[in-house]
Amino acid sequence: MLSGLRVLEIGHFVAAPFCTRLLADQGADVIKIEPKTGDPVRQWGEMVDGKSLWWSMHGRNKRCITLNLKADRARQIVLDLVEHCDVLVENMRPGQLAKLGLSAVSLRAVKPDLVICHISGYGQTGPGRHRAAFGLIGEAVGGLRHLTNHAPGEYDLPPVRVGVSIGDSVAGIYAAYGIMGALWRRDRGEKGEGGLTVDVALTESVLSLMEGMLPEYGALGKIKQPTGGAIATAAPTNAYPTRDKLWILIGANSDGLFTALAKLMARPDLLENPDYVGNAARVRHAKALDADIARWTAKFDSVDLMAMLEEADIPSCKAYTAADCAADEQYRVREMIREVPDPAFGMNVLQAGVVPHIPESPGVIRWAGPDVGAHTDEVLSGVLAISAAEIEALRREGVV
Amino acid sequence: MLSGLRVLEIGHFVAAPFCTRLLADQGADVIKIEPKTGDPVRQWGEMVDGKSLWWSMHGRNKRCITLNLKADRARQIVLDLVEHCDVLVENMRPGQLAKLGLSAVSLRAVKPDLVICHISGYGQTGPGRHRAAFGLIGEAVGGLRHLTNHAPGEYDLPPVRVGVSIGDSVAGIYAAYGIMGALWRRDRGEKGEGGLTVDVALTESVLSLMEGMLPEYGALGKIKQPTGGAIATAAPTNAYPTRDKLWILIGANSDGLFTALAKLMARPDLLENPDYVGNAARVRHAKALDADIARWTAKFDSVDLMAMLEEADIPSCKAYTAADCAADEQYRVREMIREVPDPAFGMNVLQAGVVPHIPESPGVIRWAGPDVGAHTDEVLSGVLAISAAEIEALRREGVV
Repeated sequence: MLSGLRVLEIGHFVAAPFCTRLLADQGADVIKIEPKTGDPVRQWGEMVDGKSLWWSMHGRNKRCITLNLKADRARQIVLDLVEHCDVLVENMRPGQLAKLGLSAVSLRAVKPDLVICHISGYGQTGPGRHRAAFGLIGEAVGGLRHLTNHAPGEYDLPPVRVGVSIGDSVAGIYAAYGIMGALWRRDRGEKGEGGLTVDVALTESVLSLMEGMLPEYGALGKIKQPTGGAIATAAPTNAYPTRDKLWILIGANSDGLFTALAKLMARPDLLENPDYVGNAARVRHAKALDADIARWTAKFDSVDLMAMLEEADIPSCKAYTAADCAADEQYRVREMIREVPDPAFGMNVLQAGVVPHIPESPGVIRWAGPDVGAHTDEVLSGVLAISAAEIEALRREGVV
Repeated sequence: MLSGLRVLEIGHFVAAPFCTRLLADQGADVIKIEPKTGDPVRQWGEMVDGKSLWWSMHGRNKRCITLNLKADRARQIVLDLVEHCDVLVENMRPGQLAKLGLSAVSLRAVKPDLVICHISGYGQTGPGRHRAAFGLIGEAVGGLRHLTNHAPGEYDLPPVRVGVSIGDSVAGIYAAYGIMGALWRRDRGEKGEGGLTVDVALTESVLSLMEGMLPEYGALGKIKQPTGGAIATAAPTNAYPTRDKLWILIGANSDGLFTALAKLMARPDLLENPDYVGNAARVRHAKALDADIARWTAKFDSVDLMAMLEEADIPSCKAYTAADCAADEQYRVREMIREVPDPAFGMNVLQAGVVPHIPESPGVIRWAGPDVGAHTDEVLSGVLAISAAEIEALRREGVV
């Protein structure tokens, strides 16, 4: 879908590289600039022979070049590359890029309609823009962490992380959306209109997902509280235990589905219990109802329970682990689980497929995350026509 | 940014309407088709006078028309509207749209380069495509729910929900990205190339965020497990209690930050404890280290603790509630917290701002979520030039 689009990434960690993974998956030519020490994600998570498995997916489809951005000559190379690019994506602290001599003014002097996408913790403006921000801070300041917990007073445990740096990845998808929107405007706009800037904040990306949280607080003073595995407005819907110590999610909150569930449980009395008649009553008595259901689910192994629920057409599934995802037939058929050859490991690496799926132009995983600087020569000679001798000199001088 | 773009939504619940909120926020003209009973979200969450506060934000900036899609005449009106639209977004069960006489072939017969975006639980193809799917199922089958929990064996509580329908909203952002990518291709492609299809699945949208989960399972057989508020690869980073019963997030996992924290805690002994020298050792002993830190944080009220941590330049924040988000100065300065006049409530409704922020072309909240059918006459007469008498007849016949 995006072949013919060229993107320069001066990114590290999760948010900006995740954004460019999405663009590269759809066919864009992403040129990623790293220092010789490489993006820190190359050292994150489980490693084999000193190489991160995560990187195999995070860096895929990109052309990786090294540049020492503190060298004057490197700054000129960035500007030369920008001339050949549609988009620049970066996630340094706000202002840092300008300090390196790469302000928007300098960048647009060589490429007036360049789309510039900044990703940061708190955004490019405002009194808090310089604060240090990790993914966890986006998640917490966006309001998500507080809600990821059991109900207040139930266990008094701290809220939990959602298991991935969700603040970063949500910001990365927003960035990809903003970039494509800005390119649409560019190609539609009057000639001479400059390129747009996309200013993505981790905190704001999370805040934008919070549904009724702000409207309800503003109008009623209601502070949204966590509800464990349940949903505040529908019951029963939760994770329930099985005999083999797994968790099965069941969503049976319409009257029809609840009737089907009660029947399956051989508990017609539940349907006559006034506490459980209608969703509103069930929500008020959700704790007792969930306990009733959990006592029933705990009698079965997950395989049997799942089969019974599917037979009764009640929305349900396991809380999938990595192994469940890898084995899922639907994912396999849709190529959402792929084996990607990775010479760094001398084997195939299991990776998620390309999202979203575009049937007429499905994305391609052309290669796994490359080594640091793997494409330096190719990009400098192919895009900028710098000679081999000159590249050698740049290498000696520590510029590349 | 997106003025001049016209989008038809046949959506309900969260995913498709969230996608079109993002497009409308950036200036697209979104025409939302509802049955006369309205989108169920109009009845979700806290209500005032029978009207959902969440809807005020979820439906904002859209033009809402009613159509009884089972009426033949309605099908023709949809096709007439499609002729004037760039994009169709829908999230019915796969195949349902075709059953209503609105297959891709029929739609593209009137608008050959229409971008069609389907959002569903499991995608438009494959053996599992017809399974019922709520947001919670996307979250669970994507692998996120399993990870949103305390470490195995610690409390044996069920995994928790992240507090919002994250499977839906992440799918909605992916859809917005895919749509803008497809439009970029359309405007760049050869004349006569058809429009692209964007096939977004909730499950796949979540799976794509799971970082090293699949590569590590494939190569090492390692099944990623939840880690509570901690991160498996860095320590200390967690939520810690305060004397006033709040949770403060602290990320002090580099050696420099950990030194600063130990100093602030007046615990130089921590720096000499071999269990805590280097991130790898700290990760191995994270539980003990977190307990040490928690004993310290619990002595202070959150305000004092936050001030001390900020003074020491240690990344930290509260787990923001609705009230904290609403009061945050950075959000206010960047207009990420807005008071939107809503005639349905006769007052301003507190809403999140427009993400991502495009400084040269900031999105505008033109109006809050409208009543069912508020724009039926305006759209039928303005876009399709249907006369007032004809609209009256359609209304009598129950078509609109």
